[in-house]
Amino acid sequence: MLRTHTCGELNMNYVGRDVTLSGWLQRSRDMGGLTFIDLRDRYGITQLVFNMEINPVLCEEARKLGREFVLSASGKVTERSNKNPRMTTGDIEIMVDSLTVLNVSKTPPFTIEDNTDGGEELRMKYRYLDLRRKVNKKNLELRHKMAIETRNYLNLQRFLEIETPYLIKSTPEGARDFVVPSRMNAGQFYALPQSPQTFKQLLMVAGFDRYYQIVRCFRDEDLRADRQPEFTQIDCEMAFVTQEDILNTFEGLAKHLFKSILNFDTEVFPRIPYETAIRLYGSDKPDLRFGMEFMELNEVAKGKGFRMFDDAELVAGINTQGCGEYSRKQLDELTDFVKKPQVGASALIYIRVAPDGSLKSSVDKFYSSEDLAVIALKFNAKPGDLILILAGKCNKTRSALSELRLEMGNRLGLRKPGHYKPLWVIDFPLLEWDEETNRYYAKHHPFTAPVPEDIRMIDQYLSHISDNKPVSTSLSEQNSGQIQVPVDLENVHANAYDLVINGVEIGGGSIRIHNKELQKKMLTVLGFSEEDAANQFGFLMNAFEYGAPPHGGIAFGFDRWTAIFAGADSIRDFIAFPKNNSGRDVMIDSPARIKDEQLKELGIKLVS
Amino acid sequence: MLRTHTCGELNMNYVGRDVTLSGWLQRSRDMGGLTFIDLRDRYGITQLVFNMEINPVLCEEARKLGREFVLSASGKVTERSNKNPRMTTGDIEIMVDSLTVLNVSKTPPFTIEDNTDGGEELRMKYRYLDLRRKVNKKNLELRHKMAIETRNYLNLQRFLEIETPYLIKSTPEGARDFVVPSRMNAGQFYALPQSPQTFKQLLMVAGFDRYYQIVRCFRDEDLRADRQPEFTQIDCEMAFVTQEDILNTFEGLAKHLFKSILNFDTEVFPRIPYETAIRLYGSDKPDLRFGMEFMELNEVAKGKGFRMFDDAELVAGINTQGCGEYSRKQLDELTDFVKKPQVGASALIYIRVAPDGSLKSSVDKFYSSEDLAVIALKFNAKPGDLILILAGKCNKTRSALSELRLEMGNRLGLRKPGHYKPLWVIDFPLLEWDEETNRYYAKHHPFTAPVPEDIRMIDQYLSHISDNKPVSTSLSEQNSGQIQVPVDLENVHANAYDLVINGVEIGGGSIRIHNKELQKKMLTVLGFSEEDAANQFGFLMNAFEYGAPPHGGIAFGFDRWTAIFAGADSIRDFIAFPKNNSGRDVMIDSPARIKDEQLKELGIKLVS
Repeated sequence: MLRTHTCGELNMNYVGRDVTLSGWLQRSRDMGGLTFIDLRDRYGITQLVFNMEINPVLCEEARKLGREFVLSASGKVTERSNKNPRMTTGDIEIMVDSLTVLNVSKTPPFTIEDNTDGGEELRMKYRYLDLRRKVNKKNLELRHKMAIETRNYLNLQRFLEIETPYLIKSTPEGARDFVVPSRMNAGQFYALPQSPQTFKQLLMVAGFDRYYQIVRCFRDEDLRADRQPEFTQIDCEMAFVTQEDILNTFEGLAKHLFKSILNFDTEVFPRIPYETAIRLYGSDKPDLRFGMEFMELNEVAKGKGFRMFDDAELVAGINTQGCGEYSRKQLDELTDFVKKPQVGASALIYIRVAPDGSLKSSVDKFYSSEDLAVIALKFNAKPGDLILILAGKCNKTRSALSELRLEMGNRLGLRKPGHYKPLWVIDFPLLEWDEETNRYYAKHHPFTAPVPEDIRMIDQYLSHISDNKPVSTSLSEQNSGQIQVPVDLENVHANAYDLVINGVEIGGGSIRIHNKELQKKMLTVLGFSEEDAANQFGFLMNAFEYGAPPHGGIAFGFDRWTAIFAGADSIRDFIAFPKNNSGRDVMIDSPARIKDEQLKELGIKLVS
Repeated sequence: MLRTHTCGELNMNYVGRDVTLSGWLQRSRDMGGLTFIDLRDRYGITQLVFNMEINPVLCEEARKLGREFVLSASGKVTERSNKNPRMTTGDIEIMVDSLTVLNVSKTPPFTIEDNTDGGEELRMKYRYLDLRRKVNKKNLELRHKMAIETRNYLNLQRFLEIETPYLIKSTPEGARDFVVPSRMNAGQFYALPQSPQTFKQLLMVAGFDRYYQIVRCFRDEDLRADRQPEFTQIDCEMAFVTQEDILNTFEGLAKHLFKSILNFDTEVFPRIPYETAIRLYGSDKPDLRFGMEFMELNEVAKGKGFRMFDDAELVAGINTQGCGEYSRKQLDELTDFVKKPQVGASALIYIRVAPDGSLKSSVDKFYSSEDLAVIALKFNAKPGDLILILAGKCNKTRSALSELRLEMGNRLGLRKPGHYKPLWVIDFPLLEWDEETNRYYAKHHPFTAPVPEDIRMIDQYLSHISDNKPVSTSLSEQNSGQIQVPVDLENVHANAYDLVINGVEIGGGSIRIHNKELQKKMLTVLGFSEEDAANQFGFLMNAFEYGAPPHGGIAFGFDRWTAIFAGADSIRDFIAFPKNNSGRDVMIDSPARIKDEQLKELGIKLVS
């Protein structure tokens, strides 16, 4: 071992001991008779001292060393005359009597400090230097600890971690797959899993009962700011359970992580139906660190001659307590905010409640004091409050108001770092209708079970379809034929649930279909021809014929959960070697061209 | 929860309790007035009883249920009149008063028993049924436990588990890569990692000190019997260490696994230099559960006119104790064995030591009793022993004799199941010369450090090369030019080591090069042009310029280690969803064709 101790552990108890430390030169100071070097390793920083009088040769040598040189230094632990209470090792220093330069270093392209001078692109290129910064080191340590505690909890609950294959089969439903050409089976391709979904279901069919895996998943999507082509899931599945069992089990996991990692005590997680979440917060992932629920105002706001409200599908607002004194400028800022294309409202209406209780609005022309009082009463508004109202198409208004609510939460400091409000959103719709492709998509995925009482709607829909068209035609053709189907499948509820923390979806799951016939119906609704269904999911539907137990599961975004626990927004800093927004690893310069002989062996060529 | 208890936990303590169990119908017996069903889940089997007198309707229903039906049964725990001491739950049974069929099952294509009637191909296709068999369930449970204990040990030793990317860059050195076409960077490819080698080294440069990861690796090789295109490694790396530190740390890991998983106490692992292993056992992964070391006989066996020995580069043998009475037939079998193409010897010579100490050999024509006595003395042979001798080219003779040694170990029952002899093989050669391609290959990989005292041989070799050819020419061209280089780099020792258990290589590693110049030299020796070296490993060599610490590591084959602990030969049974010898997953039928639009998006087409 090139050291006897680390740079993070020596203190007064060690004074007088001979030690050897190894690490990187963080910083050196030449004080005439003395030279100080801060030596850094994973565990901390310790001060080395070189004395010109005692050992001039060594001291001269030490003066020549540059930043990030790798050193091994031996000497005696000594009490500092000038202690540094902000450092764990600040009471001592090492009087060095021998020094080995284990490696030299060029001057790094940016400083190895929390507040570095390096831009993101540069730091990505030299990721191995970026990772030397304490903040990044802490992020990966947190991630490690999260993984340990996740496994501790699930292992105790008798879950088995089982590895599923990475070389699987492409299923065009959902996001794009990354594919892998097979050399041994020329012209054929594996695909990298978007999740181990079908395999974990097969493990339930196989009787494994409680499965989990901290597992990499892959999606070939155009990357938005905070997406990565490869990401990590805590993937879980249980058999012989109901939704209640799953929520309890994984609320237990979340509570365990909150307690063991953050020492944060959580209360029972609220369970909010999807429709309620949309109605009260305009979002299926509401931040519950603060209230500010939506109030719907159609009844009281319409019919007063104000065109914007009268024409609106929905008039709704929030009450921001204590903002009644907002200046013209602040209100203009808010108006600008809601008009941003990403928010998309056309105007912002406000009602102030003055200290004396009188009401003043931006629509006084249309609304009398009495009218405003009725509205204010709905909000239970108090002197000093500010009511903010949006109106328009229902969905659009809700989503804009949700953005405004979060913005006001930020402005009022209600989204407190270090405070956490986890909740379950339940009763999701099973299907979403897509106007563009004129078909239904699975809101969660094609294996999610509808709630039993809604299955008859699916049956009605399918029987209507088959009455009106030959059975063999695929659904998408039928839809493009503009058949009017009297059953709106968007009303079918799924046995699905999401875990949301502070406005971020951390995980989601569902009770699965475990019956071949129902699975076939679901795939038909999603527009699969019988042939496509058999080709892509035949193995799963076959498995359902051999005694598939009732089962369900959940998957958590591990990168994101870690980021949330660190109070960070971006997952990138919690991944050791992330890719940039073009899916490139700029450090290793990948993806890259491969040799012609590799292409030839794989039986593929580039389209130039 | 569709059960109150599992099928593995009920015993006399529960008698009188009302319980609900869920599981699969393993077997049912109709005994007239009573019907018995063995209900199976992950945890065990419990007997259900249906009584024709008490509840004829339910009993009739139970009689109709087939194998592998999924049931939920409620009733009272009752003491059995006819106890089964071989079952954990054999003291009790459940008097069922209500029964739900959770799912039906077609008759499985093979029996769900340890001794199944299903052939391998069929079981692979229905892997989800194959995994229901107890033997497979136990294998995956063992794997889970191995992973837990591996992490427990390494976490305590302050290792951090850090995830490295799966979408990396193709490096044609070594085995073939699986590649992944990039849609966003058309014409370019990612590669799946054969191991996280360069990334773990970069983590050491980043200062993480102690890294591990239980990680999937990929190799596009023509699959031999016991290879898989994707396999799992316990991948580890440490900084500021010497070989001694690494051997101690991971001997600790191995001891921990032996103790915690098998309750097997191991002694200090012997460390055997590569050359010694080859000389004494003809193998760099000797099975040390038994001795039977090779004895080299050139001195005593040559010069007696026996052509086979006289012409041989090596005459060597083993003494098989207690086989002196082998019959003609048994000796013929051994001769047939050594002549098999996979063993490759031309003949087998023997010397028997009779009970009276007299010697009888198959070469009595050439060797007098005195000659034979000299040989027998070398072996310290005793009455009843049988000396077996092979001769020929040195390497070939050693490898054939190694096979014979293992065969004799098997015949004599010396390779005891449940007994383990781990050892380190050290001092491997750094390079191997390949006659076919006329170049050196890295025995371990290009990042392995030579032992410091042998670096001068590399310098001599390179200076000889550059004296004889323009420096810019690549090495492979120089070699094809048939330059005679006076330095044989096969004598260079690597700072590398393997962990071997019972004749199987479980893991291997090395101290790495951490100096850019030495890494460049190594790549030159391996025939990399400067351009190729920069293109493929530039990021690593750049990293070495910014303060790379001394470091080294090891990787263990996790599938294989688990198999060894289960006393099994094949890794396939320890992988939940393995591929067959053509790299196919026959269950999901992958690899498969992908859609033309996918190919188009990726900018590739098939060569037809």
